[in-house]
Amino acid sequence: MADWLAALHRRAELRAKAGLTRRLRPRAAGDAVIDLAGNDYLGLATHPEVTAAAGRALAAYGLGATGSRLVRGSTDVHYGLEAALADWLGTDGSLVFSSGYLANLGAVRALTQPRTLLVSDAHNHASLIDGCRISGAETVVTPHADPAAVAAALSAAPGRPAVVVTESVFSVDGDLAPLAELHAVARRHGALLLVDDAHALGVTGPAGAGGVAAAGLAGEPDVVVTATLSKALGGAGGVVAGPAEFVRHLVETGRTFIFDTALPPAVAAGVRAALDLARAGDHLRAELAERATETVRRLRAAGLTVSAPDAAVVSVTAPGPEAATAWAAGCADRGVAVGCFRPPSTPDSRSRLRLTISAGVPRADFERALDVIVECAP
Amino acid sequence: MADWLAALHRRAELRAKAGLTRRLRPRAAGDAVIDLAGNDYLGLATHPEVTAAAGRALAAYGLGATGSRLVRGSTDVHYGLEAALADWLGTDGSLVFSSGYLANLGAVRALTQPRTLLVSDAHNHASLIDGCRISGAETVVTPHADPAAVAAALSAAPGRPAVVVTESVFSVDGDLAPLAELHAVARRHGALLLVDDAHALGVTGPAGAGGVAAAGLAGEPDVVVTATLSKALGGAGGVVAGPAEFVRHLVETGRTFIFDTALPPAVAAGVRAALDLARAGDHLRAELAERATETVRRLRAAGLTVSAPDAAVVSVTAPGPEAATAWAAGCADRGVAVGCFRPPSTPDSRSRLRLTISAGVPRADFERALDVIVECAP
Repeated sequence: MADWLAALHRRAELRAKAGLTRRLRPRAAGDAVIDLAGNDYLGLATHPEVTAAAGRALAAYGLGATGSRLVRGSTDVHYGLEAALADWLGTDGSLVFSSGYLANLGAVRALTQPRTLLVSDAHNHASLIDGCRISGAETVVTPHADPAAVAAALSAAPGRPAVVVTESVFSVDGDLAPLAELHAVARRHGALLLVDDAHALGVTGPAGAGGVAAAGLAGEPDVVVTATLSKALGGAGGVVAGPAEFVRHLVETGRTFIFDTALPPAVAAGVRAALDLARAGDHLRAELAERATETVRRLRAAGLTVSAPDAAVVSVTAPGPEAATAWAAGCADRGVAVGCFRPPSTPDSRSRLRLTISAGVPRADFERALDVIVECAP
Repeated sequence: MADWLAALHRRAELRAKAGLTRRLRPRAAGDAVIDLAGNDYLGLATHPEVTAAAGRALAAYGLGATGSRLVRGSTDVHYGLEAALADWLGTDGSLVFSSGYLANLGAVRALTQPRTLLVSDAHNHASLIDGCRISGAETVVTPHADPAAVAAALSAAPGRPAVVVTESVFSVDGDLAPLAELHAVARRHGALLLVDDAHALGVTGPAGAGGVAAAGLAGEPDVVVTATLSKALGGAGGVVAGPAEFVRHLVETGRTFIFDTALPPAVAAGVRAALDLARAGDHLRAELAERATETVRRLRAAGLTVSAPDAAVVSVTAPGPEAATAWAAGCADRGVAVGCFRPPSTPDSRSRLRLTISAGVPRADFERALDVIVECAP
């Protein structure tokens, strides 16, 4: 009966031989590490207004939501957050989930009928891929950021309901999807467009409203937006935003909404405070854009291969998985946290460092981090 | 392009005609509602030690975890919670997820190899069903709580890896799975046993260690336990516990762990405080058991059909979905919140009220709630 553990052990050894072991590393509260690994793009996770709002809701409601929203009721904090998100994103309505992962699972499935064709970008996040899988719908994976390939996939399935599934800012390389073109293609074929705005919300678009708003698609009746509340908004949870009738459909049929304990009221309250700060944070976004450009300039000057600085995610190519691990470890030893992405977490089997720029990191620390990354390069 | 919304509207109207509309209802902070709907079985969500621990971590770490554990690091709060959970459950190790739903998706998939047969109880929770679906493995659904049927399913697939998937306390009727028999059957066939202990953790078993511990199966090498941290522990998040090699496998390959922002440190810290209180809470469990027995006695005396009081969930049969809705609404009008479960949220298409007993409700309120439920009965 312990055979299964021996089999898992053999698989772990194969991963280790390929340099693909993943290890949890400790993180201390208030450590002096310079963070270019997390997704707290605007530095709001530790903003005093955010933690104060969370603290007040903690006192008022207790720690957890104690049940699903349908069974235990919707707090004013949840309603208020959903109204504010819809107002910001320019949609009729929105629904908050306990994680971005569950929001994506719920959104993809809710858009799927028996004959639906899903057209999914090759670089999509695991949660979107799993959403396609769990929906049971036929899924065509199209080459990355390729509206012509999407058009061809839709043309090959005339008369069928279809959904084009993409991120706006892709999570590994930080590049932008051609949203306007994708929407034009989708509309021409009567298909819907589902956009995961996780890495764009708070970072791009008018008043930080994200990639869909930046593309001029806010509130379009054939567009559904998802996002996580755990990146620029500094908290946890996810949201699906779109037409009111679709939000109602999610409330009544979305399994990952119905059968899940609600986001803790304290987290929802903290995110609500962060939303106001993010929306008013054009100065933070200007700082972010400047730092992203500076990052790319510095690293390219050092001879490194770096992605375009379209948002706040910058990808730096590494020679291989072991070199990437050693590079990230070298940075960590010198007090700089960077993301280390290796297969199978990369869409193209290339390893890289992922740098996430945050306006919350002190400027001198940010400059020092760039020095360290260059000095530790393989 | 608005056709899809018209189609959703028609489906909503069909649900409304069948009495199956789901509506979010408001819930105020500190309202006077007597809660027999939530899952805060021990009343720990509002315990001052729990909220104080969460508040301290909120001050130390900020609101969100700002990234996945592998990318952003594991706080001492997460490590400490996982060690305490493993110690309580009697397993080698444990891994915390951001929700119980994601823990179940991760656990089922991590136990699945290409030829695996999943044998799933007919009353299993949506998250286990979705775990089976997303794993892609062949799944046989066996009649509820039926070890002979499980044995037959395993016998029909000789030589194949197999996993028996069940809850310990079922979420709708609150009845117990025959865990010892299921484990004996599984072991005889070389299969693994996956148990979702969500409604048992803190409620049943020695020191509240749950249904697996109660059945004498804690730490067995062919048993994996999952649970949510949002019920008796009053917080949010989920856990998978089992052999260390399996936990390592989850860390390195579990998509719903790897590609998900970690549980907020403040929530993990609050849950950690709740765990200590739950583990020491035999007096709370005695009160719970007494109240569950009293609930069944009172409601049966009033001629109602009520499930056995095996844990802290009691199910009361309603004549139909509309009657169930009206019954729950009548209770709500009189200040008592009860769960209202209708198809498709019930495994057998029967509607019922679900009463969840909490030791945190003042005794007089609890007694009054029973009066109201009887008086509002159809």
